[in-house]
Amino acid sequence: MSTTTSPIVASPFLQTLVAQYRAQDPYGIYASWSDERFLQPYVLTKEQKRQISLDQPVDPATRERITRFYSAIARLIEQQRGKLTQVVISLHDEGFGWALIFSGRLLLVARPLRDAQRFGFASLEQMAQAGEKDVQNALALIDRFPAVTEV
Amino acid sequence: MSTTTSPIVASPFLQTLVAQYRAQDPYGIYASWSDERFLQPYVLTKEQKRQISLDQPVDPATRERITRFYSAIARLIEQQRGKLTQVVISLHDEGFGWALIFSGRLLLVARPLRDAQRFGFASLEQMAQAGEKDVQNALALIDRFPAVTEV
Repeated sequence: MSTTTSPIVASPFLQTLVAQYRAQDPYGIYASWSDERFLQPYVLTKEQKRQISLDQPVDPATRERITRFYSAIARLIEQQRGKLTQVVISLHDEGFGWALIFSGRLLLVARPLRDAQRFGFASLEQMAQAGEKDVQNALALIDRFPAVTEV
Repeated sequence: MSTTTSPIVASPFLQTLVAQYRAQDPYGIYASWSDERFLQPYVLTKEQKRQISLDQPVDPATRERITRFYSAIARLIEQQRGKLTQVVISLHDEGFGWALIFSGRLLLVARPLRDAQRFGFASLEQMAQAGEKDVQNALALIDRFPAVTEV
């Protein structure tokens, strides 16, 4: 048994993401899963990414992972500032598109997506950093332009 | 020959929309088409709308019309204020989604789409009004929050 602290315990972002998966399991089918098991599909090595063909449409499970990743960011923003947010994932089968989060008329996250078939991170730590950076940037935008969220 | 002025001549929005269709006709296949003929598929009576089933996915031609409609709005905003804009149409097959136009971090148009299979207007005049209203609202937002477009 490892004594290393799980990166999930240390990350409000990863905890929020796991909580989303658990919340959408009303019959408890995945109740026995560890937190790590829910997030494991987000972790891809370079070699694993290379093996995913870009000639194929983005598969539904990957779309779902992208949507939940940005939904967890949105949830944290809402918790921190009490603002309602909207998440829009616009993804062409070819793997490009946008992940957008907005509140009122303020775009809190505007991330172009490319090669979305290969959406993933080198480690849970890296994923936690990416998510938390988006949250922090969004909070700074709200604090700078609060009136735009009220339009 | 009718002496009525075409609503297209009177509307910068409809002119911009027609110009988009003509610009994407490099081989002049549709060069003989009148302006009205390009825009005619946007006009649907209530009865015509009713006949379009909502149980079917949004067909590609309708998606294209929606995209061009909002692209014409974006083009006019760019012309009026010299701001680059981005159009994102996020449309589920079921017919719901979003039409978004943004510049920097300012959302200039944020239109929820529903029953997009039936996207259309009672008349060209009504379509012109809808498009121009979106343009005017967007320009007012830019003038109110110019700094947000520069983020």
